[in-house]
Amino acid sequence: MEVIHTISDMKRFVTDSQAAQKTIGFVPTMGYLHEGHVSLIDHAKEENDTVVVSVFVNPLQFNDPNDLDAYPKSTQRDTEICAARGVDVLFMPTVSDMYPKDMGMTMSLTKRMGVLCDRTRPGHFGGVLTVLTKLFHIIEPTQVYFGLKDAQQVAVVDLLIDNLNFPTILRPIPTVREPDGLAKSSRNVNLSEQERQEAPLIYRALSEAKVMMEQGERDQQVILSHVQSVIDQSHHAEIDYIELLSYPQLEALPTLKGQVILACAVKFERARLIDNVLVDL
Amino acid sequence: MEVIHTISDMKRFVTDSQAAQKTIGFVPTMGYLHEGHVSLIDHAKEENDTVVVSVFVNPLQFNDPNDLDAYPKSTQRDTEICAARGVDVLFMPTVSDMYPKDMGMTMSLTKRMGVLCDRTRPGHFGGVLTVLTKLFHIIEPTQVYFGLKDAQQVAVVDLLIDNLNFPTILRPIPTVREPDGLAKSSRNVNLSEQERQEAPLIYRALSEAKVMMEQGERDQQVILSHVQSVIDQSHHAEIDYIELLSYPQLEALPTLKGQVILACAVKFERARLIDNVLVDL
Repeated sequence: MEVIHTISDMKRFVTDSQAAQKTIGFVPTMGYLHEGHVSLIDHAKEENDTVVVSVFVNPLQFNDPNDLDAYPKSTQRDTEICAARGVDVLFMPTVSDMYPKDMGMTMSLTKRMGVLCDRTRPGHFGGVLTVLTKLFHIIEPTQVYFGLKDAQQVAVVDLLIDNLNFPTILRPIPTVREPDGLAKSSRNVNLSEQERQEAPLIYRALSEAKVMMEQGERDQQVILSHVQSVIDQSHHAEIDYIELLSYPQLEALPTLKGQVILACAVKFERARLIDNVLVDL
Repeated sequence: MEVIHTISDMKRFVTDSQAAQKTIGFVPTMGYLHEGHVSLIDHAKEENDTVVVSVFVNPLQFNDPNDLDAYPKSTQRDTEICAARGVDVLFMPTVSDMYPKDMGMTMSLTKRMGVLCDRTRPGHFGGVLTVLTKLFHIIEPTQVYFGLKDAQQVAVVDLLIDNLNFPTILRPIPTVREPDGLAKSSRNVNLSEQERQEAPLIYRALSEAKVMMEQGERDQQVILSHVQSVIDQSHHAEIDYIELLSYPQLEALPTLKGQVILACAVKFERARLIDNVLVDL
């Protein structure tokens, strides 16, 4: 595996791959890799000649500088994981290479916003657009891989690629879960033992609601109330939001039909967890 | 020459060119081609295996709908010119293919704005960013060609490519002029006979000021006044702006040094003309 630290070296690798007519599967990450990322890598490996994983903690998508500073890093472990899964290039650019000066332009979203995680992270997804546009231009991927746990991020990338005609294919990959249903996340290590025991209630609530919809329930209040009542069995969980929206448009639904997302965010003492289910009605 | 009307057909052509390892030179235009465009095409032809010219009047960059409706069209003549110059593909997408629905995002500039033509056309260059991003993604050009007569547009494209790491090379091409110095422009046909006789004063004024700078003049007021006094010899010209800025940054200069642009816009009864000179100090 090649570890590349500069944009110019990365571009050289891409030019060579293109000359050799090789497809590139790209997995953008902020590092601290877990089994969710490994699943993205494995899919990319299976579906492309070459796999590039980027590890870059993008300052543009953090509204809170403390949050940026506290973001966990594990460069050695990330490198080992990528090497073990057969990644061809681990791309770890520096902030000064990615943002050598103040940007002279901004990208911002007017749709798929004002709901879910955008409520509490204003500006976050604009920063995501910008860094992905840069990375897509540097790596020129045939296919890009994102986990559906961050369903709003997938919706935003879908809009970015579609609106701007990016020559790449979005591959959303299903959420990887613990045996008890809890979605894999770097943040799970911050749960206390008691919280960890209660956290699977989140997915249980979403799954039960999904079954209700599949069996014909169309009253959104009934569905949302059921999710809330199941999660409320936890003594430590504090619900941030539970929302039922069209997907990937993320718009409120007068009547439940088409593809919908049921998503929630739940706060524990030192971890805020998100999860969702997609239902085709 | 192939005339392509849909994005999907254009993408197919690009994929085939890439498979054949051919470089693509791209000349984006709004049609109504004149000798300035022909010069861009000729440069592209000389420097690439394949030349693509787009003709698309981009609604996003017009702040005045009347201006958009009045924009001149000459599809047959454009087609003949492109065919005669050896263009490989003339790409003429429809508005509904380029903008099938309201965009869900915006791109806007924070630098290189508030000066020159941005003063009177707010939002114009944001629309330029968006359409070029789309066209660059559809055509994936090795090199893109823009005329230096629209020096602010060149500066904006330079910033776009640089900020977002586009895998393409910007080729700014010198302004093509009439024998008497007047910059070629589609708008010149709207000059009256008398105005046409006076219009070369614009380039004469800029050229004389350039010589003054090259000979050591550094007093910006003296330089700007000279340009004004020469253009004021015209009875019909009304000066919109005369500006002296760094290039391509387009920032005011405390002292004249480095690469500078001296640019002006002049209004006649039915035509607003722009022109500029670049000086390396």
